[in-house]
Amino acid sequence: MASVDVKSLEGLCQQAKRASIALRGMTAARKNEVLHEMADALVRRTDEITRENDLDVADAKSAHRPGAVVDRLMLDADRIMAMARGIRQVAALPDPVGEVEEGKQLPNGLQLVKKRVPLGVVAVIYEGRPNVTSDAAALCIKSGNAAILRGSSIARRSNGMIADVLTRALNEADAPPGAIVNVEGDYDQLRQLIQMKHLVDLVIPRGGEELKGFLVEHATVPVIYAASGNNHVYIDADADVQKAVKIVANAKVQRPGTCNAAETLLVHRDVAGVALPAVVAALGPHGVALRVCAASRQVLGAAAEGLADATELDYATEFLDLTMAVRVVENLDEAVEHISRYGSGHSEAIVTRSLAAAQEFEVGVDAACVYINASTRFTDGGEFGMGAEIANSTQKLHARGPIGLRELTTMKYVLTGDGHVRS
Amino acid sequence: MASVDVKSLEGLCQQAKRASIALRGMTAARKNEVLHEMADALVRRTDEITRENDLDVADAKSAHRPGAVVDRLMLDADRIMAMARGIRQVAALPDPVGEVEEGKQLPNGLQLVKKRVPLGVVAVIYEGRPNVTSDAAALCIKSGNAAILRGSSIARRSNGMIADVLTRALNEADAPPGAIVNVEGDYDQLRQLIQMKHLVDLVIPRGGEELKGFLVEHATVPVIYAASGNNHVYIDADADVQKAVKIVANAKVQRPGTCNAAETLLVHRDVAGVALPAVVAALGPHGVALRVCAASRQVLGAAAEGLADATELDYATEFLDLTMAVRVVENLDEAVEHISRYGSGHSEAIVTRSLAAAQEFEVGVDAACVYINASTRFTDGGEFGMGAEIANSTQKLHARGPIGLRELTTMKYVLTGDGHVRS
Repeated sequence: MASVDVKSLEGLCQQAKRASIALRGMTAARKNEVLHEMADALVRRTDEITRENDLDVADAKSAHRPGAVVDRLMLDADRIMAMARGIRQVAALPDPVGEVEEGKQLPNGLQLVKKRVPLGVVAVIYEGRPNVTSDAAALCIKSGNAAILRGSSIARRSNGMIADVLTRALNEADAPPGAIVNVEGDYDQLRQLIQMKHLVDLVIPRGGEELKGFLVEHATVPVIYAASGNNHVYIDADADVQKAVKIVANAKVQRPGTCNAAETLLVHRDVAGVALPAVVAALGPHGVALRVCAASRQVLGAAAEGLADATELDYATEFLDLTMAVRVVENLDEAVEHISRYGSGHSEAIVTRSLAAAQEFEVGVDAACVYINASTRFTDGGEFGMGAEIANSTQKLHARGPIGLRELTTMKYVLTGDGHVRS
Repeated sequence: MASVDVKSLEGLCQQAKRASIALRGMTAARKNEVLHEMADALVRRTDEITRENDLDVADAKSAHRPGAVVDRLMLDADRIMAMARGIRQVAALPDPVGEVEEGKQLPNGLQLVKKRVPLGVVAVIYEGRPNVTSDAAALCIKSGNAAILRGSSIARRSNGMIADVLTRALNEADAPPGAIVNVEGDYDQLRQLIQMKHLVDLVIPRGGEELKGFLVEHATVPVIYAASGNNHVYIDADADVQKAVKIVANAKVQRPGTCNAAETLLVHRDVAGVALPAVVAALGPHGVALRVCAASRQVLGAAAEGLADATELDYATEFLDLTMAVRVVENLDEAVEHISRYGSGHSEAIVTRSLAAAQEFEVGVDAACVYINASTRFTDGGEFGMGAEIANSTQKLHARGPIGLRELTTMKYVLTGDGHVRS
């Protein structure tokens, strides 16, 4: 697909808008047929997709992009099969459209029904993982929305081909082809996109801080910001230390690069003497570099040798690797205070046997997900039983936590009367 | 209260933030006690409030402000009693905080509960109606939020005194006084306020287009825009014309200055010959000035004499007075198309006996509230049984339609395990 000029970007968005009107009235059964056709087409046209992907990968390698970036970019038959499977899983999820959230007869006899309807046109902006193209398309279509997909230029050819495959599948299934629109272009064109209030109902950025900053500054279309997760595990005075250590290890080590991994460990002073050495012993073999506060150092004694000091900056940092800051706190209040200062409102855990402490932590911590005696790593649409997720929100409005199908919808009040007028 | 400089504005917002943490854990019973104390204090200190209000009113009159503006500004013992009654009505509403929207045991045994929690700090920006000060404060406190209230400078003294009364009442009731913060200042200071992302969770503007434009440009804090309502009544081919005429008259005449009044009448060609003369006959005595399309003029014949022509601009205008545009459409699709082009997504009505037409209209029209055989005038938190409303949203994210207590909350996932880790 050629670079998109402003005029045709508007044209593409208008196409998406028109498609969204058709999608609004489409039954779940029809949408599922469309999704299965999309999945079939991806598998059928695997060779065409990998051919384009090979070119993107070759370019990325010539440009000496990091190995992890190239790995995320790379598609093969297995990965394309997984993309198809992802689409079929979305087809298997219940359709949120038409769900009645509330309904009643008003005193005057007017029937009020509050029902779930699609948002309309959802734009997803993402980086170099071409599988997001099909994931995001599937979630949008299942929730009755047209999708505008803007991937990274590094995956330009792959995304173009995947979009072509999916769009033709829409045609095959007699669905409006504008339901999936692939756009490209530079930040100037991105700015146009995120200011098309009359055509775009929501923008979801899945990208780094630079992209988010750009949207904060320029977007007039509503945005749901996908989250960074500066998450904590707090080991309370009343904790089962053995369970606590397992939870800390899981939250830090199991997949440290994800937004639901833990970055800082807070330990109640009363239990630090037992818990900290156990944490050091458990995390050391995994190669975790602990950065400890003065009190931790004192408690650990010789075991603290070689560990770096924790700084204010460390507490504020989402390491996303095998680094963990450690701080001893005087009490639960201090833990909550620390989390309220440094946390990003994503996922926060307490380990305790005290009901009172669990309740106080739950109310005190202002985050999307609060864990009691469990690892922060569970924050995930799939784990929560929502099926797939398109992103994870730490904002408070509209969607907080995993953004699944339901979060891609809005509500409509339908009021039915018999000539009712207001007096 | 003196004009607020930036530093102390930040200080006030910090105070609100601290109060919001205390409010978060307050029971409904305690919050209701606080609200009743606030209501009592307003009545008890009526004289002080009217004394300050008299000064504001005198200034407004000297400045030759329009009569309607002065009337909205004016407070007397009756109106203050009504404000107190409003607070008590909010106290009587169910508390949304703690409502469990969803809960389940995940396959791994983790208990998931999605519960409603306060947003935190809500800033309400409004114009010259001092009663909004107590309405907004009551809704925020009942939903567990601290309120930052920024009224118009025209009501400066009144708002300052009402806030003083309410804040002292908070003290009396052992509630955190920062739960209600009254701020003033120019647009520079407003800009500071709407960019305090770390302290303010939501801004709700209740004001004109100038204020909204300023927020669109400058706000980084999330905003829910209160709506303008360019609403339509569509008389379908299958309509009961007598009911239709009553609905049109009610939607236009009963209170034309509100956002849920109707601005344009659409009439199916097949019924125009009967409906239009009846509409002219019904609306004429109320002093409604109709602006008609060419087809309407043809249908009306002599009855159209003296009526102005409807222009594109008329269709796009929210008159908010006794003016109504009229257009004959060929079919329901054309009506939906017209509404999608000119409507503001607020309240749209169809009058029909056809189930198919009602369903098609409901799905086709993208608005917060769709009415079938009823007047658009019912769009209101009170009418919908939500108790009071703070504003009416035409946006699709977070809140669509009346913004009541529930819309002033967010959700929190609480997950309880027994040492659960992710594998």
